[in-house]
Amino acid sequence: MPHINVDENLPGIRSLMAFSPQTATPMGELANLLLRSNDTMSMADRELIATRVSYLNDCFYCQHSHGAIAVCYLGGNTELVDQVRTDYNNAPISDKLKALLSTAASVQKGGRYVTPQQIETAKGLGATDNDIHDTVLIAAAFCMFNRYVDGLASAAPTDMSSYPLRAKQIAEKGYGNHIFSNKQPVAETEGIKG
Amino acid sequence: MPHINVDENLPGIRSLMAFSPQTATPMGELANLLLRSNDTMSMADRELIATRVSYLNDCFYCQHSHGAIAVCYLGGNTELVDQVRTDYNNAPISDKLKALLSTAASVQKGGRYVTPQQIETAKGLGATDNDIHDTVLIAAAFCMFNRYVDGLASAAPTDMSSYPLRAKQIAEKGYGNHIFSNKQPVAETEGIKG
Repeated sequence: MPHINVDENLPGIRSLMAFSPQTATPMGELANLLLRSNDTMSMADRELIATRVSYLNDCFYCQHSHGAIAVCYLGGNTELVDQVRTDYNNAPISDKLKALLSTAASVQKGGRYVTPQQIETAKGLGATDNDIHDTVLIAAAFCMFNRYVDGLASAAPTDMSSYPLRAKQIAEKGYGNHIFSNKQPVAETEGIKG
Repeated sequence: MPHINVDENLPGIRSLMAFSPQTATPMGELANLLLRSNDTMSMADRELIATRVSYLNDCFYCQHSHGAIAVCYLGGNTELVDQVRTDYNNAPISDKLKALLSTAASVQKGGRYVTPQQIETAKGLGATDNDIHDTVLIAAAFCMFNRYVDGLASAAPTDMSSYPLRAKQIAEKGYGNHIFSNKQPVAETEGIKG
């Protein structure tokens, strides 16, 4: 049960963002800037980093929400996303993305765990300053989002068929305020319960 | 040395926000909403939570930056802020604030560490749903800010006299874009070096 009085028809972070629409706005904008860009890193790569960090933080709602969004961008390849989420070293992805996922895992432990060697390796594999900046900030931001979701014990749907439905909405429209607005409960429009 | 090519005249998160002004905007807005409000929790209490979480995350720049801002709001009481930062249980603060600091410390470890008992205790001491929401989100947000600052190895000034100077600027003007703009390097206006 959530620690505060939120709309129980809304799942996960959506219930918190409806509770606090003021803070939802910059959080949605940050998610849009970090995850809805194909600037040198693809939207799929960005969602894979978010998914992996959410897995490391043991955030059920976020790892499955963002995993499902990555699946949308990767032509329905659920197997690949599951492998990156739990065992990226053996996944068929680029060495550059593996180096960035390694950096993201260090950020998840704490900022000081990132080593100059990790950064050098990533740069040697073609990562730009922007790639490194965005990787670190995506990982850091999901240390916030994951803690927000679980720190307030928001409801994570156990019906796994609801995740692809919400993912499709975000893959099409992004993380704008329409996602977090409490005027159109997601449960009503998508037929799911939190 | 920072892991990416940032302006070395700017300290800590300011150098990163100048590197990426697009993401700086929502991050500054979020900080303003969470820290520049006196709505049931004072601005001093909010900065104390930020300071304590930054201390637990071992983020030198953030714990001293936000500690110095709390000192501004608390009439220059450096001793109190240092005690809350390192040993809040024995500090002369309200039991309600102690309960919220305990909740924030759980969030710092991970969202799932927050217990219903902690929330009940805080509510029994007068904490509202808004207080609990803001405490959890402040703690979560500083798990992001701290990791952003240290994950990119931004420069933390070792000249401790520079922290009160920057704190005064934020205490007066808040966390708007003027703080993070790269048009007016802080080092030039305040006589400090990163």
